[in-house]
Amino acid sequence: MSNYKIDSDRMARTGVPEIIFGETKSIDQLVMILKEMIRKKVPAIASRVSPEKAERLKDFFPKSEYFKTAKIFMAQKIKFSKTKKVAVVAAGTSDVDIAEEARVLLEVLGCGTESFYDVGVAGIQRLFKVLPKIRKAKVVVVVAGMEGALPSVLAGLVKAPIIAVPTAVGYGTGLGGFSSLLTMLNTCAPGVTVVNIDNGVGAAISAYKILNV
Amino acid sequence: MSNYKIDSDRMARTGVPEIIFGETKSIDQLVMILKEMIRKKVPAIASRVSPEKAERLKDFFPKSEYFKTAKIFMAQKIKFSKTKKVAVVAAGTSDVDIAEEARVLLEVLGCGTESFYDVGVAGIQRLFKVLPKIRKAKVVVVVAGMEGALPSVLAGLVKAPIIAVPTAVGYGTGLGGFSSLLTMLNTCAPGVTVVNIDNGVGAAISAYKILNV
Amino acid sequence: MSNYKIDSDRMARTGVPEIIFGETKSIDQLVMILKEMIRKKVPAIASRVSPEKAERLKDFFPKSEYFKTAKIFMAQKIKFSKTKKVAVVAAGTSDVDIAEEARVLLEVLGCGTESFYDVGVAGIQRLFKVLPKIRKAKVVVVVAGMEGALPSVLAGLVKAPIIAVPTAVGYGTGLGGFSSLLTMLNTCAPGVTVVNIDNGVGAAISAYKILNV
Amino acid sequence: MSNYKIDSDRMARTGVPEIIFGETKSIDQLVMILKEMIRKKVPAIASRVSPEKAERLKDFFPKSEYFKTAKIFMAQKIKFSKTKKVAVVAAGTSDVDIAEEARVLLEVLGCGTESFYDVGVAGIQRLFKVLPKIRKAKVVVVVAGMEGALPSVLAGLVKAPIIAVPTAVGYGTGLGGFSSLLTMLNTCAPGVTVVNIDNGVGAAISAYKILNV
Amino acid sequence: MSNYKIDSDRMARTGVPEIIFGETKSIDQLVMILKEMIRKKVPAIASRVSPEKAERLKDFFPKSEYFKTAKIFMAQKIKFSKTKKVAVVAAGTSDVDIAEEARVLLEVLGCGTESFYDVGVAGIQRLFKVLPKIRKAKVVVVVAGMEGALPSVLAGLVKAPIIAVPTAVGYGTGLGGFSSLLTMLNTCAPGVTVVNIDNGVGAAISAYKILNV
Amino acid sequence: MSNYKIDSDRMARTGVPEIIFGETKSIDQLVMILKEMIRKKVPAIASRVSPEKAERLKDFFPKSEYFKTAKIFMAQKIKFSKTKKVAVVAAGTSDVDIAEEARVLLEVLGCGTESFYDVGVAGIQRLFKVLPKIRKAKVVVVVAGMEGALPSVLAGLVKAPIIAVPTAVGYGTGLGGFSSLLTMLNTCAPGVTVVNIDNGVGAAISAYKILNV
Amino acid sequence: MSNYKIDSDRMARTGVPEIIFGETKSIDQLVMILKEMIRKKVPAIASRVSPEKAERLKDFFPKSEYFKTAKIFMAQKIKFSKTKKVAVVAAGTSDVDIAEEARVLLEVLGCGTESFYDVGVAGIQRLFKVLPKIRKAKVVVVVAGMEGALPSVLAGLVKAPIIAVPTAVGYGTGLGGFSSLLTMLNTCAPGVTVVNIDNGVGAAISAYKILNV
Amino acid sequence: MSNYKIDSDRMARTGVPEIIFGETKSIDQLVMILKEMIRKKVPAIASRVSPEKAERLKDFFPKSEYFKTAKIFMAQKIKFSKTKKVAVVAAGTSDVDIAEEARVLLEVLGCGTESFYDVGVAGIQRLFKVLPKIRKAKVVVVVAGMEGALPSVLAGLVKAPIIAVPTAVGYGTGLGGFSSLLTMLNTCAPGVTVVNIDNGVGAAISAYKILNV
Repeated sequence: MSNYKIDSDRMARTGVPEIIFGETKSIDQLVMILKEMIRKKVPAIASRVSPEKAERLKDFFPKSEYFKTAKIFMAQKIKFSKTKKVAVVAAGTSDVDIAEEARVLLEVLGCGTESFYDVGVAGIQRLFKVLPKIRKAKVVVVVAGMEGALPSVLAGLVKAPIIAVPTAVGYGTGLGGFSSLLTMLNTCAPGVTVVNIDNGVGAAISAYKILNV
Repeated sequence: MSNYKIDSDRMARTGVPEIIFGETKSIDQLVMILKEMIRKKVPAIASRVSPEKAERLKDFFPKSEYFKTAKIFMAQKIKFSKTKKVAVVAAGTSDVDIAEEARVLLEVLGCGTESFYDVGVAGIQRLFKVLPKIRKAKVVVVVAGMEGALPSVLAGLVKAPIIAVPTAVGYGTGLGGFSSLLTMLNTCAPGVTVVNIDNGVGAAISAYKILNV
Repeated sequence: MSNYKIDSDRMARTGVPEIIFGETKSIDQLVMILKEMIRKKVPAIASRVSPEKAERLKDFFPKSEYFKTAKIFMAQKIKFSKTKKVAVVAAGTSDVDIAEEARVLLEVLGCGTESFYDVGVAGIQRLFKVLPKIRKAKVVVVVAGMEGALPSVLAGLVKAPIIAVPTAVGYGTGLGGFSSLLTMLNTCAPGVTVVNIDNGVGAAISAYKILNV
Repeated sequence: MSNYKIDSDRMARTGVPEIIFGETKSIDQLVMILKEMIRKKVPAIASRVSPEKAERLKDFFPKSEYFKTAKIFMAQKIKFSKTKKVAVVAAGTSDVDIAEEARVLLEVLGCGTESFYDVGVAGIQRLFKVLPKIRKAKVVVVVAGMEGALPSVLAGLVKAPIIAVPTAVGYGTGLGGFSSLLTMLNTCAPGVTVVNIDNGVGAAISAYKILNV
Repeated sequence: MSNYKIDSDRMARTGVPEIIFGETKSIDQLVMILKEMIRKKVPAIASRVSPEKAERLKDFFPKSEYFKTAKIFMAQKIKFSKTKKVAVVAAGTSDVDIAEEARVLLEVLGCGTESFYDVGVAGIQRLFKVLPKIRKAKVVVVVAGMEGALPSVLAGLVKAPIIAVPTAVGYGTGLGGFSSLLTMLNTCAPGVTVVNIDNGVGAAISAYKILNV
Repeated sequence: MSNYKIDSDRMARTGVPEIIFGETKSIDQLVMILKEMIRKKVPAIASRVSPEKAERLKDFFPKSEYFKTAKIFMAQKIKFSKTKKVAVVAAGTSDVDIAEEARVLLEVLGCGTESFYDVGVAGIQRLFKVLPKIRKAKVVVVVAGMEGALPSVLAGLVKAPIIAVPTAVGYGTGLGGFSSLLTMLNTCAPGVTVVNIDNGVGAAISAYKILNV
Repeated sequence: MSNYKIDSDRMARTGVPEIIFGETKSIDQLVMILKEMIRKKVPAIASRVSPEKAERLKDFFPKSEYFKTAKIFMAQKIKFSKTKKVAVVAAGTSDVDIAEEARVLLEVLGCGTESFYDVGVAGIQRLFKVLPKIRKAKVVVVVAGMEGALPSVLAGLVKAPIIAVPTAVGYGTGLGGFSSLLTMLNTCAPGVTVVNIDNGVGAAISAYKILNV
Repeated sequence: MSNYKIDSDRMARTGVPEIIFGETKSIDQLVMILKEMIRKKVPAIASRVSPEKAERLKDFFPKSEYFKTAKIFMAQKIKFSKTKKVAVVAAGTSDVDIAEEARVLLEVLGCGTESFYDVGVAGIQRLFKVLPKIRKAKVVVVVAGMEGALPSVLAGLVKAPIIAVPTAVGYGTGLGGFSSLLTMLNTCAPGVTVVNIDNGVGAAISAYKILNV
């Protein structure tokens, strides 16, 4: 696509770099776009890059780094100044991929993170064990599929703003994540905002912006 | 409606009396049906009877009793043998009407109940305060609108079977109770079964049946 | 996932063991989790385990048992005290897999079961032939796809509480089981509670809890 | 609306007269349209005419007849040749209005009918009592709200074609009749066709056409 | 599934044989069920049988016949008395498979048919060319995907009852056939009844029942 | 609302004036906005103005004109140069209000119109009678509720671009106009574009823009 | 409801006071709850209080303050320490009520705000005029109904985190705010999080929490 | 399908040739239909032809031309008279395929086009750079997935009529393009009409018709 227009001053305007969505782009498109980004001296990062694609991209970008569970590919390391801490919380084992997408992107952007996985509401004592640590975070990203109840419970327990990420984990009436999304939107505990289903990148960018307020 | 057919042997077949749905029936229809029930010696109970309708029905049934919050009308007192205890739990103030519908009907059917209202997940410490008492119940009916997360949390904490009742409480994406219903169906904690939105009667009948297992 | 946290006291809290959802977990994850469960002396049972996965898991768990139609894998036999009888009823041939998931899990948990398959409402005389036997059960689990009418009919005929399981069987407007689910939620016969689409595990756990009331 | 175009040869083309939908039309519009119909010598019949509207229309049409439960208004009696019998079956008390809309329109069109009301599946023995009579009908119109299971059960028991009419009766997840509609479309018993929710007129016209095959 | 219960007296009760849904059944299940049907002397017909399955089934049933476009498999020829004529109309090229499913099953059941394909509303003059022939049919089955407008147009032009079959043909907002289904249910022309999306079998059985009124 | 910002150069930018949506605005808001528009010398037109509101607005704008069926209020007459002709076609009597909204606005904007009402597909011969006249139009606006099939049929018969307006007319599965909208979006006849349900104003503005191409 | 349990330590746990939802509560309930809050020395604030209710509440709370457009009632003034600035942006005139709910609550909680109303995307030059001022805010709350595109545009232009509030403004396919909600969730510009439809309170609480990070 | 009926006078009636939908047709069907079209001297064009199919079709049509990104196959070159210019605008890289489908078909039909890709609202300055060129077009086709906000922004900036094409690009709550479609239908900027999701062909045909007004 010679038509692709790099939005090279996005960082100046919005404070965050553009993250290329790798899932629907070919190797050729990704190479061209990432190279153009390096040439324009903007951070060259792609999300939803499969291990197979990453393997092939590495040949073009010797200084690249790839995060497998998070599916994030950095064509070149960039220095971001270190900022305050984000807690990344996941309800179930199956929510970890999206949680890692958010967590790794935050680390890449220079934000310290701590992760708390497998603390869903079905065994709420697991949450209470790690609660003192979560309470120390400046922002809390909560990732949950199934019934998505974890952000509601946490919002009643912590002072930090909560960014809830519904995931498509579930079956039957899970509706590809819509059940979890609806739960989060209808939370009776204020202080929760929501991003799109499986949108770990969006949660990370919003958390990053909040830390820079 | 001279066409109405009393299902007079339902109690023999199913162990529970027929509960007349009062909302869509006229005073004339209700009087006719309830009188026929008394004549056939089956329990004459109607749900969703507005205070206005109840006022007018009392003239026809001097031995009747009316429960205002629960909107349940008994045309004639019936003796049911006392059974074991049901905990009726409600998440928010606005869920109390449906909780009372279930609770009163259970009492009317001879089941002892204890109610725990306003213990939603936004302030989960309120739930933990009453948890030891809830744990003593044989069956737990949980009524919740908004995000409907309460049954999931409780199912991870008690041994009794849980009957979850979603309510239409909420706004925006509440979808008239569907959000709460979906949360309950997608619970990650097994041991929860669900009835229709606002169906306090159905929850009570099922709890009653369980107690008679 | 070294992050997986076994909820080892769930049985003490809720009376039922945790059932691992095998469909979205890798062999490595399953082996690690099941071994940890055995080490912590909690029942090690996984659902939705494909025959291929089961074949590979057997190498790690020599005392294991696998139920093919039900897709349930027990890493180690556990003794549960025998309880009262559950009738597992399925409407059509295609509903049998989910019915078996519920039935086998109940047997594994020590509950006696009897199954009645292929008794859907299109040929209702088939139901009446087995009705006397179904009436002897303490709890009835009814599994139905397509229009999901079977629980409504049964609820008017038996005294036991009914747990209805909608299945994704159907096409066109079946909506992946939603049509059947809506039918069951809107039943005109009280005494029916519902679990998620294809949730045989949830139905079994609820039936088990009811038997222990 | 002087723009209204009477489709005066519809009867010649389709074998059935046009039935004017009275609910959304003013008295003025109805009078003008019905008079034009009489002038063009086509049957002048309107459906969904409220008692209040009917009262006012009678002044304009002295030879008119009004059917209150069915809400059908005939501006002038028309002779149709008598045809074979239709059974009109309704599941619950609240489905009777729509059932009467179909039944009265059939009688008006010259078709003999017999009605069987309050025979829903929650007490299926009521259906079996009247089944021999229903089996004598040439066409069966089945009206049901709530879970809408009655047509499925009947389709497995009778030889006549069944026209199923879902009604908006219900609450919670009834979805204004959609639950009942989906049940009927997903029936496991072939031989059932469906019309729109609350469309008693459509069912009657189709039954009438079938009788004239 | 040794549990499969042949509904061997369905023909006596409903006037139509059971049609086995072949799509979700294995070769083993189909052979067992079809053999049992032959043994019980009921018509042994399966729908949605893929060419691959049909090839393998032929080895078990030497007297069988297979209809490729219609995907219907008759394990054994049965004589049905010839009845009156059905017009099977399809809107587009892609609707032909479902139209053939209905048409072949009707022929198999002894009903004469005539087919009119590719006469959708985008070129309505094509419909008018064949209209005189369609008008001679006793029943009209209309199959249409996309916007599904054909039944509405035909219902204003013919006297025969119309059975409309929505198909899943389409894309974008076609919603897997729901758009077409909604069009048919909302038709402004009465005399149309509808079956489930892609349910050619249901349409054929209903047409067959209508011809036997 | 002193905060309201008149978009006074919209006409220069887009070629069309802003049409104020009157339904959700108070008399005070409308007077203030319309006066501001007159002061800034931009056309002062409001849609969805009820007769009651229009009556009160007239006191403030002596040179105003009100179109009752179309519910359009012009605070002051404006001269637009006369352009070519638009055909406004409506399927049923109940679609006329929205058709008039489009037609009157077009006339107000200086576009000649001709209207063809009550020509729905249930009696398609009515459409063919006026077809030669419709064919003379430069743009065709087609307004239809119920099944919304009219644009599909017309698109196969005329050369002009067609703007389809679904209306909320219907009941049962009409879904407040969504059924009609889906029909129009899924048309098998290209050359149809669609605006929002009941959006007569949008259709008129688009037709006006097309005439000025 | 003597059962109402004040969550008196919520402020200590979550950093924000409980905001009572006034819409579904009676005067009696509100008086009781607000008095209890004052007694427990927690901020006594209610949202969605109609002018009529506010009038009656004032008699009970002489030190109260009421904000009409925002529908917020403070039973007693509370001092919050002043924090940094929030921009509250609204797309259209009809979105102002919800914008004011968020803005007033923020002011009440001690956050400085600046509002920018009527800057929707249909006249995007209006947005650019105020953009330099919006860029100075620490957090941006964007309220939009109809197509809800404003947050996407803003997210590409500012550094602050954006909290998007969909409103129920719209008609036809607006789906009571769902269209706007979906637009916001699907934004191609990261840095946007979303709250429930019309949830001005939730947006304010989240903005407040972010300012206190 | 020997049943396929070429609509050979469609061009005379509607001014546009029939475009064959290639996706659901076999090579055999396509060859037969395209040959018949050539024989009847109507333009022989197919859309949604995969590269594999195109390769095989070329053997049958030596004078054919294939456009890979647009997936359009012309069996034989046809001369259309050159008309005025259309701007084809795409929001993101992933929307280009559908944009090309529209653009190529317009060129094939003799309409000059200019394309503007990757100008989505997340970096709105990219749009403003090309705006002067877009303003010169007679018609603007705007293709956008994700939140679909681009047509709303453009409609406030240009005089030409806008045809919006939602695409299925997106994930989570994108609903296969429905989110984008709803955004476009609910636009607050009039002058936008919409076609089905991914319907580049429909947009091109409508633009072509508008240019010939």
